[in-house]
Amino acid sequence: MSLTYRDAGVNIARAEDALSRVKDRIARTRRPEVIGDVGQFGGLFASPGADKVLVATTDGVGTKLELAQLLDRHEVVGADLVHHCVNDALAMGAEPLFFLDYFATSKIDPGVFARVVGAMADACATLGVALLGGETAEMPGMYAADSYDLAGFLVGVVDREKILGPQRVHEGDALVGLPSTGLHTNGYSLAREICARRAMHERSASLRDVLLAPREALGGATLGASLLAVHRPYLAEVHALRAVADVHSIAHVTGGGWEGNIPRALPDGTAARIDRESWEVPSLFTLLARLGDLDEIEQFDTWNMGIGLVVAIAGDSLGAALASTPGAVALGRVVPHSAGRRVIFG
Amino acid sequence: MSLTYRDAGVNIARAEDALSRVKDRIARTRRPEVIGDVGQFGGLFASPGADKVLVATTDGVGTKLELAQLLDRHEVVGADLVHHCVNDALAMGAEPLFFLDYFATSKIDPGVFARVVGAMADACATLGVALLGGETAEMPGMYAADSYDLAGFLVGVVDREKILGPQRVHEGDALVGLPSTGLHTNGYSLAREICARRAMHERSASLRDVLLAPREALGGATLGASLLAVHRPYLAEVHALRAVADVHSIAHVTGGGWEGNIPRALPDGTAARIDRESWEVPSLFTLLARLGDLDEIEQFDTWNMGIGLVVAIAGDSLGAALASTPGAVALGRVVPHSAGRRVIFG
Repeated sequence: MSLTYRDAGVNIARAEDALSRVKDRIARTRRPEVIGDVGQFGGLFASPGADKVLVATTDGVGTKLELAQLLDRHEVVGADLVHHCVNDALAMGAEPLFFLDYFATSKIDPGVFARVVGAMADACATLGVALLGGETAEMPGMYAADSYDLAGFLVGVVDREKILGPQRVHEGDALVGLPSTGLHTNGYSLAREICARRAMHERSASLRDVLLAPREALGGATLGASLLAVHRPYLAEVHALRAVADVHSIAHVTGGGWEGNIPRALPDGTAARIDRESWEVPSLFTLLARLGDLDEIEQFDTWNMGIGLVVAIAGDSLGAALASTPGAVALGRVVPHSAGRRVIFG
Repeated sequence: MSLTYRDAGVNIARAEDALSRVKDRIARTRRPEVIGDVGQFGGLFASPGADKVLVATTDGVGTKLELAQLLDRHEVVGADLVHHCVNDALAMGAEPLFFLDYFATSKIDPGVFARVVGAMADACATLGVALLGGETAEMPGMYAADSYDLAGFLVGVVDREKILGPQRVHEGDALVGLPSTGLHTNGYSLAREICARRAMHERSASLRDVLLAPREALGGATLGASLLAVHRPYLAEVHALRAVADVHSIAHVTGGGWEGNIPRALPDGTAARIDRESWEVPSLFTLLARLGDLDEIEQFDTWNMGIGLVVAIAGDSLGAALASTPGAVALGRVVPHSAGRRVIFG
């Protein structure tokens, strides 16, 4: 018995075939700073000046992956990964420059790979980000059949004096909320558990049935489609806000929900006082909360509840900010904080 | 039944506990260019000058992970991930600057997490790399119990005129080989398959038994220990070589072995003529090849065979190169290539 690497389940030609299917779409993400070709040991990108600061961020898509795999919607998670990283860079005040991805699976399906990585490339091209490299790992036995994991890495750039953060924020600053498209990429384990319990409750229903049933509460849409809305990138909105308002800090509402993220954009001793009437929680969240019988605090600690980005701005630029950005809401104010939770409703 | 995110298997406090255990070791990787604290939406790092080029690379550890998990050797893969990325940056002529990691599992074990990420931090500190950020993903059901996946991302910097690559290489250049410590992080699926078949062949033996048996061919060491040697970082060796020799290009011998990597460092129309007597293939490789009854070509297309880095230098600096770097071998020469394989023995 003469063994080969192929016998052990790894096929380098398959990985190359997969990559060749998206080569052209990756090429379209090229920026003038990119040097040389793909396929080197590292991607090359001309450095910004020494007066600039690089911003590096890494993210995954979490268990939204399982829904995308179950419902054959692989493009969604490819775009999600790029958008998640871009929003994190925006939260620091940066412009995104380049992106790299990690794609890991037990056995590469070149068609699925091309859909995922092609969607990443398209998202990069749309947002002006160079897709500079990636790693495709075929690990037999490590992942369930047809399952894969993704990680993304993004580097952006910001002028040193324009770095956003808590240090710029003061009491009285206004908090502007930008609407999300759904759960974005966080809180899917809870959403899936709710759907799975619902399937058990309805006896003969499968998880798939629960996800694919039209829902009156969603205007006839399905939970599956609503849960697989693409994570919204806020590049254009942040540009519009910064053009007219004095932006101090930005919270990207991801894992940990409101309490887990909004305080990351606030200085010690302050809290966010939120006007609960300033926006309407989308029906996807209220439906999930009803199906799962969730406490409201649990919802806000897990999901974005319809607000994907919270932007702290100078109080006197609130009017201009709201006028510049369709959908933006006056969410609340930065107030003093003594003890307890730092996101306060009412 | 009121559900919580915790019921769904995600526990953000557990992730924070895990991170708190390695905070000090991460802090020790700080470089002067790092700005602000950990815990922001992105890590901040002062940009090198506009005359510099950034080099970005991403890697995983592959199925070496499964061996490390089986034999409770989590530190190894943490260090491997950093070293793999550093070597890829070195292959472009760059100095490593900062690193980010992605750690994904079904349920975070804070002790295991601290061992993996702590080892990453220590590897970063040793090599002068800032550990600038990371993502810890808890994805219930996505990974087998006690299993996790890792991805690493590294940015380095190189002077524009010092970028290494095939364009610098000429016929007659000398190829210097630097010894590996073992399989590094590639070809583990094949090694595991060999060990697993051996276990089946020996009937009552488990994979663990095969890995933990002392082997005469390894001087009494076990396959498990030999397979879990840390991927060697070549930072000091590359510095030593560049100080005395005119280095043209570097191949990091990873996935795809010799034929998959050495040609990436050679210009079209050239090949590597290798003197098969210039180094001795370590007994780990010959033992695995014997147990798996492998063709030699399959071995060289999968494993590094004892040579982890191949450095192309000007022919007249060979003597100085070999004298500067203990263990370096005169592997061969760059020769014309017409057709067929580009790594030629003899």
